Amino acid sequence: GGATGAGEVTGSGEVTARIRLTDRTFGLAPEEAVLRPPSLIVGVGASKGAPVDEVLALIEGTLADAGLSPRSVARLATVDAKAEEPGIVEAAGRLGVPLVTYSPEQLAAVPVPNPSDAPLTAVGTPSVAEAAALVEGAQLLVPKTKSAPEGRPAMATCAVARRAPRGRLAVVGLGPGARDLLTPRAKDELRRAAVLVGLDQYVDQIRDLLRPGTVVLESGLGAEEERARTAVAEARKGQAVALIGSGDAGVYAMASPALAEASDDIDVVGVPGVTAALAAGALLGAPLGHDHVSISLSDLHTPWEVIERRVRAAAEADIVVTFYNPRSRGRDWQLPKALSLLAEHRAPRTPVGVVRNASRADESVRLTTLAALDPATVDMMTVVTVGNTATRDIAGRMVTPRGYRWQQDPDTKEHAAAEAGR
Amino acid sequence: GGATGAGEVTGSGEVTARIRLTDRTFGLAPEEAVLRPPSLIVGVGASKGAPVDEVLALIEGTLADAGLSPRSVARLATVDAKAEEPGIVEAAGRLGVPLVTYSPEQLAAVPVPNPSDAPLTAVGTPSVAEAAALVEGAQLLVPKTKSAPEGRPAMATCAVARRAPRGRLAVVGLGPGARDLLTPRAKDELRRAAVLVGLDQYVDQIRDLLRPGTVVLESGLGAEEERARTAVAEARKGQAVALIGSGDAGVYAMASPALAEASDDIDVVGVPGVTAALAAGALLGAPLGHDHVSISLSDLHTPWEVIERRVRAAAEADIVVTFYNPRSRGRDWQLPKALSLLAEHRAPRTPVGVVRNASRADESVRLTTLAALDPATVDMMTVVTVGNTATRDIAGRMVTPRGYRWQQDPDTKEHAAAEAGR
Repeated sequence: GGATGAGEVTGSGEVTARIRLTDRTFGLAPEEAVLRPPSLIVGVGASKGAPVDEVLALIEGTLADAGLSPRSVARLATVDAKAEEPGIVEAAGRLGVPLVTYSPEQLAAVPVPNPSDAPLTAVGTPSVAEAAALVEGAQLLVPKTKSAPEGRPAMATCAVARRAPRGRLAVVGLGPGARDLLTPRAKDELRRAAVLVGLDQYVDQIRDLLRPGTVVLESGLGAEEERARTAVAEARKGQAVALIGSGDAGVYAMASPALAEASDDIDVVGVPGVTAALAAGALLGAPLGHDHVSISLSDLHTPWEVIERRVRAAAEADIVVTFYNPRSRGRDWQLPKALSLLAEHRAPRTPVGVVRNASRADESVRLTTLAALDPATVDMMTVVTVGNTATRDIAGRMVTPRGYRWQQDPDTKEHAAAEAGR
Repeated sequence: GGATGAGEVTGSGEVTARIRLTDRTFGLAPEEAVLRPPSLIVGVGASKGAPVDEVLALIEGTLADAGLSPRSVARLATVDAKAEEPGIVEAAGRLGVPLVTYSPEQLAAVPVPNPSDAPLTAVGTPSVAEAAALVEGAQLLVPKTKSAPEGRPAMATCAVARRAPRGRLAVVGLGPGARDLLTPRAKDELRRAAVLVGLDQYVDQIRDLLRPGTVVLESGLGAEEERARTAVAEARKGQAVALIGSGDAGVYAMASPALAEASDDIDVVGVPGVTAALAAGALLGAPLGHDHVSISLSDLHTPWEVIERRVRAAAEADIVVTFYNPRSRGRDWQLPKALSLLAEHRAPRTPVGVVRNASRADESVRLTTLAALDPATVDMMTVVTVGNTATRDIAGRMVTPRGYRWQQDPDTKEHAAAEAGR
């Protein structure tokens, strides 16, 4: 465990060197090289006037005894009162690392294995070295150790901790379902993950792509908040986490609750995916050729008044609409209501596409009209795309024109833009 | 050429048989099998009372002489006046194929190598056999041949044509640019294409994925209509065509003009891709966590009044907006105007994401606010995402909440829907 890893540098298929990434000292094999991560934090305490040689000898001896490399020391840490103690400041300088300090209150709040009354009296915290090493949430490797000068009492203490690596949360869209609509980037992120968090049915969809040993934290429907919190908490522990969602994980899905939880102490990577509106559009023809809006009809998340206002806006502004979550067993009047709002501004023959489980084995695609759509044929696995006044059924395909003014227009710069800007 | 192809059936890596798909007769090798496509059309002419044996002998002899298999005959074809001529009807019956007939006007309109006055007088077209074989746009393999009965004049003619295979137009979204955001399905379609049609800069992006020999029809900016027409025309010739676009080819791109041209005589396959709004969203955080609209600010394609109406609608209904084609050299007032419309309903600190060339080498990502955005930093390679009143900058990431009523809600069916419906 810890900050140890190994990789191979290869050229034309041959191994030329073995690189190890570790803060531990060890005998290198002939073809090995080592990289030192800045992973160690050394907590330091010292009496007033402690000589730099004593502090430095303590630190170096402690690291050597523990089999740890001084090159992996990221910083020295101590209490505010010792911020200008010459022996500590100079030790940091000779090691070439920064010195950071904490208030007695911050340090007193850190549970440590070896508290003591002496520093409590002197600087207001029962531990300096151990607490300063641990205060940022690291793992204690060497407990408090005293210096051993010849012929007088020790004037310095130190403790060594390994800080957790920075966690990484990848929010991964799996696409609409078919394996060949999963992007290579999504696949790579799944392979990279040490911890996978997701809805059980989506986990099943990609379980074969995970590395052996990946920790899978799957949960059932309704546990969205819990999944978001779990993913962020695992990343905070320094794990490489993949949080999965179908389609694009940022669209009505897990990215939003997870990022609402995440602070800047973890890295976040979003992998976009083919969302249901696009998957349905490709099956129907080209309904999204011009402006289009995605609206969820689920009024569990959003007051119906807000949804209705958005549907009315789309109707009045003649925007193509894709409805997500259009209808469920207990929620049956919202879709007819939404369609009737659109029908106030669009002809009965306006094309409507009904796509269920796009790209999955049981996919179904139907092209109908605003007048003819039977809402009873729609369920939660379906997205419904309603054309605008320009949308046409052309040879059984649903097409919304881009408009063709460009044909006459000599401004080729704009043509570039029109396509390249997408 | 023609309807000939070969493939291998393999089991555990071993070749077990070689299957050929062809309408040609030939000696089979020991481990070969053959599949017969229904590719041949036999045009037939006959005098009144022509015996079935004479008609059948003519057809079978003609096919044999040309090295063509009778099992590949899809149908017999003649003029309407011969629809009930017993020799022809029975020949079709014995061959097990349908008989189709055409009006003299339809046949007279087909250019043929061997027109004649006799049928023109008799049935009103200068060719029956050749014209009937060719009327659906097939390729003539055997010109008009007469029967050779012993001791009397010929009473039957025939000609053989091979019909063009049904063309296939794949409209392929390449994603935002990075190779690892190109879906495997898109890659497969590029490999499958015999003809590739696209904007030169997008062709450059994927040229290495094409099979050797793929015909590449690339054109420059401003030739959108021409590309659409070319792609459809190539498919109509029976080709396997891939028409490419960046992002999702159905969003402000080539699918719409191409499908406006296409009729039902070709197959169309759409391959959805990661559109710019999604690629930008993944980089920004989770701005599209709830309802969102894509609006193009290019008023070359659309009157500004329509665009303004749509922006106003998004503003009033509090919908997150992604602007495509937001600004170009000659078009600089539209974005500020659109932002000012949104600002009438949203606070100055509303998060705004500015993403240029998402996933490409020169990608840039900026998170700013409605008040602070400098439109001069935006160009046609950029998409601009404006949050709604609920959107927040959380730890430097742009997040639009889904809302969390589900936490309290016991209706787990709806939870399923909320995520699975995407």
